[in-house]
Amino acid sequence: MSKVKREIHFKKVAIIGVGLIGGSIAIVLREKGITKSIIGIGRGVKNLEAAKKLGVVDEFTQDVKEGVKDADLVVAAIPVASIARVIREALPFFKNGAIITDVGSVKKSIVDEIESFLPPEIHFVGGHPIAGTENAGVEAASLTLFQNRKCIITPTKKTGRTALEKVKRIWEIAGSEVILMDAERHDRILAAVSHLPHVVAYALVNTVSGVRDFDEDIVKYSAGGFKDFTRIASSPPEMWRDICLLNRDAILDVIRRFRKTLEGLEQLIAGNNSEGIMREFEKAKNIKNSLKTNSK
Amino acid sequence: MSKVKREIHFKKVAIIGVGLIGGSIAIVLREKGITKSIIGIGRGVKNLEAAKKLGVVDEFTQDVKEGVKDADLVVAAIPVASIARVIREALPFFKNGAIITDVGSVKKSIVDEIESFLPPEIHFVGGHPIAGTENAGVEAASLTLFQNRKCIITPTKKTGRTALEKVKRIWEIAGSEVILMDAERHDRILAAVSHLPHVVAYALVNTVSGVRDFDEDIVKYSAGGFKDFTRIASSPPEMWRDICLLNRDAILDVIRRFRKTLEGLEQLIAGNNSEGIMREFEKAKNIKNSLKTNSK
Repeated sequence: MSKVKREIHFKKVAIIGVGLIGGSIAIVLREKGITKSIIGIGRGVKNLEAAKKLGVVDEFTQDVKEGVKDADLVVAAIPVASIARVIREALPFFKNGAIITDVGSVKKSIVDEIESFLPPEIHFVGGHPIAGTENAGVEAASLTLFQNRKCIITPTKKTGRTALEKVKRIWEIAGSEVILMDAERHDRILAAVSHLPHVVAYALVNTVSGVRDFDEDIVKYSAGGFKDFTRIASSPPEMWRDICLLNRDAILDVIRRFRKTLEGLEQLIAGNNSEGIMREFEKAKNIKNSLKTNSK
Repeated sequence: MSKVKREIHFKKVAIIGVGLIGGSIAIVLREKGITKSIIGIGRGVKNLEAAKKLGVVDEFTQDVKEGVKDADLVVAAIPVASIARVIREALPFFKNGAIITDVGSVKKSIVDEIESFLPPEIHFVGGHPIAGTENAGVEAASLTLFQNRKCIITPTKKTGRTALEKVKRIWEIAGSEVILMDAERHDRILAAVSHLPHVVAYALVNTVSGVRDFDEDIVKYSAGGFKDFTRIASSPPEMWRDICLLNRDAILDVIRRFRKTLEGLEQLIAGNNSEGIMREFEKAKNIKNSLKTNSK
């Protein structure tokens, strides 16, 4: 721990949005001795009071400008659609040399927008911890949320090296495997492995519940498979709407690929192509097996 | 228990296919005093030996003809593509008055085929317990597998009333809610709530793993959503291939509906239609809530 203290330390950290992710970062920063004091910034007083009671933050404010003014590090753990706007509005109040980072699951549009207005004396490093995205609130925040998870950081040519190093170290100390990646690459990869599955789950659930050929609600006959889809499709609608809008092109690209794959499968089924169907299903099953091997 | 004994009793039951489902039926039949003796029929000796060791069956044979010859009740708990063929091959060996039932997740083609060759002195009642379909083997068989699950039974005009009543009672005694339904209706409903989700999961997993635009395997960046899909897509490929072939038309119909829903969502995203996307996502989220209410 003393080693950690020596290599990276902030006097004051501001967390904008003290939910599961923001709260867990706060816990990591405190428990690992990375900061002396933490201020929580948010809109809901009740949640902020809970965060203080839990010892996640030392103090809190609903005023972003007030909250960021002495902070050496500012973490924006708020919905993707708000990140750039909130930072822009607070811009005149940031301390010189302050480092801002975020945890949004879309990066290119956020990084581009923030860099377009950021003065050189304030630093921004885009980040995305691939961890629980469900809005479980500060009560679920924990020191271990980011352990053995991946965290993608998306520096640009404008990103200061020291700021990048510091943000990288925070995530390493949190227990994550840090991967540096171009923001556009991040968005295209996440469109495939995360955003597409959610869009497909929403569409599947609406299709099944939209089957009105019968005089009863057929979802009551569902078992395993469909119920997994309903769980995925119960993620916060606002969050996924914003992701769809902010990462539109990459998501549309993978939807198109998915439709092609599905149409291929459809043709195999329509043609009674037993071997072809088997080949496709076995291919999918093997992915699961390779994931198992990877994640030991 | 004595009540159960009085109302329904078999001297000997043959279970063809002693896996999770077949084994669990055997346990129910024995524990509830519905039969005196149970013979297990299967291809794998090891599995049959395990079933006997576990006390799930009293004896076993690999010869279907030998196995069914004294049975009052025969339960076919084997893959859907084999049910009609196996019963046809054993036909000359069934006892007069024997009741045959199955547990296949496709009904119309199986029921039609079996009724086309079944003599009037042997009875068939198609059934489908909506319970664990993963091939977990006889070791996972249990008395409680069917409790609080639905079991759909698909009688036809040819189905004997007494045979139907007896099969219905077995499932009720097993703890299931029994629903009588036309076989075609069963297949159309299951195509939507069960078969479609699996086909979509296979297509989704293959799409994501087929994204080869990068110099690394991107599935390692996946989290919750995609992993759920890989789990669904790791169901036995043979089983789902057979279901696709046997319930082809109903499955193709719901795939087409799904594609339409997805294309609608695609257009909303392409058009930056924030309200439209939100409406679709919220609709899907509400299904989950209504499922919760249904299943308490």
